[in-house]
Amino acid sequence: MSKVKLTITMSVDGFVAGPGQSPEHPLGVGGEELHGWLVALKAFRESHGGEGGEVNASTPIAEGILGGAGATIMGRGMFGGGPGPWDGSWQGWWGDDPPYHHPVFVLTNHAREPLELQGGTTFHFVTDGIVSALEQARAAAGDQDVSIGGGASVAQQYLAAGLLDELVVSIVPILLGDGARLFENLGDAKLEQIESVEAPGVTHIRYRRA
Amino acid sequence: MSKVKLTITMSVDGFVAGPGQSPEHPLGVGGEELHGWLVALKAFRESHGGEGGEVNASTPIAEGILGGAGATIMGRGMFGGGPGPWDGSWQGWWGDDPPYHHPVFVLTNHAREPLELQGGTTFHFVTDGIVSALEQARAAAGDQDVSIGGGASVAQQYLAAGLLDELVVSIVPILLGDGARLFENLGDAKLEQIESVEAPGVTHIRYRRA
Repeated sequence: MSKVKLTITMSVDGFVAGPGQSPEHPLGVGGEELHGWLVALKAFRESHGGEGGEVNASTPIAEGILGGAGATIMGRGMFGGGPGPWDGSWQGWWGDDPPYHHPVFVLTNHAREPLELQGGTTFHFVTDGIVSALEQARAAAGDQDVSIGGGASVAQQYLAAGLLDELVVSIVPILLGDGARLFENLGDAKLEQIESVEAPGVTHIRYRRA
Repeated sequence: MSKVKLTITMSVDGFVAGPGQSPEHPLGVGGEELHGWLVALKAFRESHGGEGGEVNASTPIAEGILGGAGATIMGRGMFGGGPGPWDGSWQGWWGDDPPYHHPVFVLTNHAREPLELQGGTTFHFVTDGIVSALEQARAAAGDQDVSIGGGASVAQQYLAAGLLDELVVSIVPILLGDGARLFENLGDAKLEQIESVEAPGVTHIRYRRA
């Protein structure tokens, strides 16, 4: 049975993006810093067409993010292009060959035709909510997992609705002070710790729905 | 050189006590649950005059809390007895033989004579602030460490002032939803991850001031 998974990096004070998110600062002020552990890795660089980088205890976690799913769901903010009706020239942040290589379902209030880019990534725009997006993503993923990409609001909605099977929180020793919190508006969601992994500059904790 | 240390348990959503702290619920609603990992341990039970309990990867962390310091600093709320002028009959939550066995400095706005209990625990009431309390605690601890006991506000004040050398955050898979946050009002405090320890139902992350 395929799982619905979220892997997300959080500052030790609880934020997954800094304050002041905007098209120029999609992760808010200071938010880029959160992913320093990830972009330093060989696994990340190679998936983005680069070379070099480290192999360490974070590598299996990064490989899980980058290669473990057959479909991804993300919010409008994570796909980008600003709020409101679509400017059809916006194709996401990732260039002509995005690192997904599978169908991506973008939650939005504004309909748009599917956008097929290179390397197997097609963005589908879903206007009828998180349950519909999940059904479509499950169908597309087959027996592979469905990855919830973020941001915070999308993650919260799936967690609160009891639709998330597994959650990996990568906690970095950064204090952002303000921004988008991961763990709020969660109703009576319950978690159980499965494992934790110590890695350079980050601790990965894997939870499942309890 | 002796260190100033804080070991504190935090829900994964960032709270070190639940909402509605009161004399009846010193850790707030749901807050008692946070310390389930600790009270299950043999090391904890024996230090509180009980027996039985588990030995696991949390044991060295618990021994660090219980035995590693020569003096403790805590806030008025943690000592208890309600706000305002002292009711001299209040001797803390811990009975005649508190588990500290060393001098404890209680930050308060209300002066009170030192309170000497059994087993080497004397409570000193400090009305002139966190720096004075730390000077007194360092003098009392000699070459042993000084432990910051909590609660959240006291921890924040020492962290923000750059007076905390080491911080162990024990993260439990509990969502409290509301309460007292550890990581806020911290100015530009910076942390560095030293190690993390996976244990049953809890992940301990050790940080130092960066």
